[in-house]
Amino acid sequence: MKLIKSIFAASALLTAASGMAHADETADSAKALIEKAQASTLGWDLVESLTTEIGPRLAGSDAEARARNWAVAKLTELGFTNVHIEEFELEGWRRGEISLHVGDPYPQRLVATALGGSIGTPVGGIEASIVRFETVKALKDAKIGSLKGKIAFVDEIMTRTQRGSGYGVAVQKRSSGPSLAAERGAVALLIRSAGTDYQRNAHTGGLRYDDAQPRIPAAALSNNDADQLARLLALKGDITLNLSMSSKRIGKVTSGNVVADVVGSEYPDEIVLLGAHLDSWDEGTGAIDDGTGVAIVTAAAKLVADQEQPKRTIRIVLFGSEEPGLIGAKAYLEAHRDTLDKIIMVSESDFGPGQVWRMDTGIAKADEAKADAILQVLRPLGVLPGDRTASGGSDVSVLSSAGVPAISMGQNGWDYFDLHHTPNDTLDKIDPEDLAQNIAVYAAFALMVANTEGGFHAPEKNTD
Amino acid sequence: MKLIKSIFAASALLTAASGMAHADETADSAKALIEKAQASTLGWDLVESLTTEIGPRLAGSDAEARARNWAVAKLTELGFTNVHIEEFELEGWRRGEISLHVGDPYPQRLVATALGGSIGTPVGGIEASIVRFETVKALKDAKIGSLKGKIAFVDEIMTRTQRGSGYGVAVQKRSSGPSLAAERGAVALLIRSAGTDYQRNAHTGGLRYDDAQPRIPAAALSNNDADQLARLLALKGDITLNLSMSSKRIGKVTSGNVVADVVGSEYPDEIVLLGAHLDSWDEGTGAIDDGTGVAIVTAAAKLVADQEQPKRTIRIVLFGSEEPGLIGAKAYLEAHRDTLDKIIMVSESDFGPGQVWRMDTGIAKADEAKADAILQVLRPLGVLPGDRTASGGSDVSVLSSAGVPAISMGQNGWDYFDLHHTPNDTLDKIDPEDLAQNIAVYAAFALMVANTEGGFHAPEKNTD
Repeated sequence: MKLIKSIFAASALLTAASGMAHADETADSAKALIEKAQASTLGWDLVESLTTEIGPRLAGSDAEARARNWAVAKLTELGFTNVHIEEFELEGWRRGEISLHVGDPYPQRLVATALGGSIGTPVGGIEASIVRFETVKALKDAKIGSLKGKIAFVDEIMTRTQRGSGYGVAVQKRSSGPSLAAERGAVALLIRSAGTDYQRNAHTGGLRYDDAQPRIPAAALSNNDADQLARLLALKGDITLNLSMSSKRIGKVTSGNVVADVVGSEYPDEIVLLGAHLDSWDEGTGAIDDGTGVAIVTAAAKLVADQEQPKRTIRIVLFGSEEPGLIGAKAYLEAHRDTLDKIIMVSESDFGPGQVWRMDTGIAKADEAKADAILQVLRPLGVLPGDRTASGGSDVSVLSSAGVPAISMGQNGWDYFDLHHTPNDTLDKIDPEDLAQNIAVYAAFALMVANTEGGFHAPEKNTD
Repeated sequence: MKLIKSIFAASALLTAASGMAHADETADSAKALIEKAQASTLGWDLVESLTTEIGPRLAGSDAEARARNWAVAKLTELGFTNVHIEEFELEGWRRGEISLHVGDPYPQRLVATALGGSIGTPVGGIEASIVRFETVKALKDAKIGSLKGKIAFVDEIMTRTQRGSGYGVAVQKRSSGPSLAAERGAVALLIRSAGTDYQRNAHTGGLRYDDAQPRIPAAALSNNDADQLARLLALKGDITLNLSMSSKRIGKVTSGNVVADVVGSEYPDEIVLLGAHLDSWDEGTGAIDDGTGVAIVTAAAKLVADQEQPKRTIRIVLFGSEEPGLIGAKAYLEAHRDTLDKIIMVSESDFGPGQVWRMDTGIAKADEAKADAILQVLRPLGVLPGDRTASGGSDVSVLSSAGVPAISMGQNGWDYFDLHHTPNDTLDKIDPEDLAQNIAVYAAFALMVANTEGGFHAPEKNTD
């Protein structure tokens, strides 16, 4: 037994040594990629082209279809394999126009924007008095029926944080606020934007109507205008507003995901999936959300392909219709459910162009040493170890929830919610050096994952 | 003769000594005012009230009339004397709506705003191709008739400077651009905003039609959108735009200046005139332009009155209709032309809330020592000596041009043109400490000028 054990041990040691040699080689290749990424302008060129030539790309719109064609042309031109569109349908929506005016004795216009998916008002608008709530919790605590004929105003502020954790709290008023207000009898909902800036831009974003409640129009005020309305309410408790919105749902429309591969040499059917989303809200040009993500994962995969063929396939998925609720991701899951076990890693770039400063994992404990080997290569780029709760990012969280291993590259989001979902999400907000750091991270990461001996596995359930 | 000269000299010395004692006393009083100003919230309360309760105050609008009533009520409540409105008429204008779209193959909306005073387009808009000029000089150099049927686009950038001197150059395209373009055959003019920000807000501001040329619609693009349009033109020389504007001139409307005095004890008919303007463009709430000015001069005069009666009268003039071209100032000049010689000093606060960092004079050389005595009191507030070319400020330059002495309190305008004439000109942009420094400067200045022995005189012609 001892002998056999020893042979086993020696064999394991040999394999490990060979694995380590492999790993060292891959690490060196990854370091070379990092240098190339920092010298390349490909990422910038891609995001400039997308945001200039297509501009805003609302889910299910003609512009989003043009963006898919743009992506297919670019990915083909860059030499990707298997470039194609996977179409799906969703409920379409159009923003229309909005006007919001304060009534006497303080007549003035306020800056607001419709929430994505909101119905419009009757022609001529809704005129009603305002009831203000400091938090969405306070709205929840209001009695059913207590807002009959009123406009509810949820004035909850968003807290600025590096990781964007203030958003999860702030977004409650936007997603669940409309139906909570309707359930209490309100005829419309206004919210303080889920955003951290004071540049007089209102932040749009999707709402979620509860089928059990009547649908009411819902809009976001800029932070400046939310302050103004709060001051007016402090002067005079009974403030009347006229809200007019021509937003509407337009029935079934077509969207799609764009897929492209760098085919692997040894395990071509095993997939390292890098995600981003092609659609954007319709008021900015979708530069930071998510033109940067499109540029980052595309440029990273192209840099790998130009240097060497990875052992596994690196797949780019540019999801459609992320903004209305991960519609493209859900379609991808359905279409690829039978081969999910072939996806050994997902990671998405969808948090702007801020530098990657931490790496979080959503993998088996046994694979943590492999992840750490990747982290060691990324350390000179300023990447810190993170936690073990990664979903991989917005769209791909649908895949990691279904049992696919994930790693999240945590970006500095300090300024992200100044711009997110506003007209002000434009190309000029991207720092080319930050963009290059992201591409360096993703290129090195993609190659190392693709070449990692034994691959990665999903986290054990109920751990941590 | 020698004896007589000596007696004269002794007498002059005595007078000077008595003047110096006076001056010392006034300087001490001014220093006490500075302390009080820094502890007072009156200025903040005024600008908060004006921008919240009235909001935007377009020249000749109902809102501007409400602002006059607001001012009369506030000034009366604060104990000013002789509070009244001096009405005048002007050509009214309404902004209406604007939409600007790029044609195929890059269909997208651009953010733009009508220039103040512009005519509208025909219903359905103007569809025409664009000709870009890097500077207004290049537009001037274009041949008469060479822009027939085109939209001219003057893409000249504005340079950021502490004193705002970039504005004088940048504003040329806005004021003279429309008629230069029309003279060359253009059907409309677009300009890059005369502004320094990238917050996706277009900067409005008055244009000036030359009566010899046809009037054409004119609008400003945000800097972000000017960049976008320039990039599109680089991709494809022939870009078509659709511009639709419902702006219109609406005939004679009423505006007015609001006047209020702190009556002097010794020379009540001699006036130290502190100016600001009540009107604002209609998209922001006119906080930095010029709610701060209204607050600064009002609070400064009130602080003086609360402490002591000045020897001369300190007069506040809150001008109407500054934005369309100093209309209120010209009306004031006409109404008070017979008593101009009684105004011994004008100074206006109309450059936002940035701290005062220099003092420029527009006075007789013989009075410079008196101005220096004032400067010495302001030095601990960070005020530097300036030059001798002061006009006193926007409206009051009409008075100094007519021979009234002036001193300008130069403010830090580094950020001013990020906000100026945009929707983003809102209360939150004002730093209360900066505001208090301005009020301290104006309070000390007003008292010292009011009490200065012998007063101030206009600069000699053709000096410097």
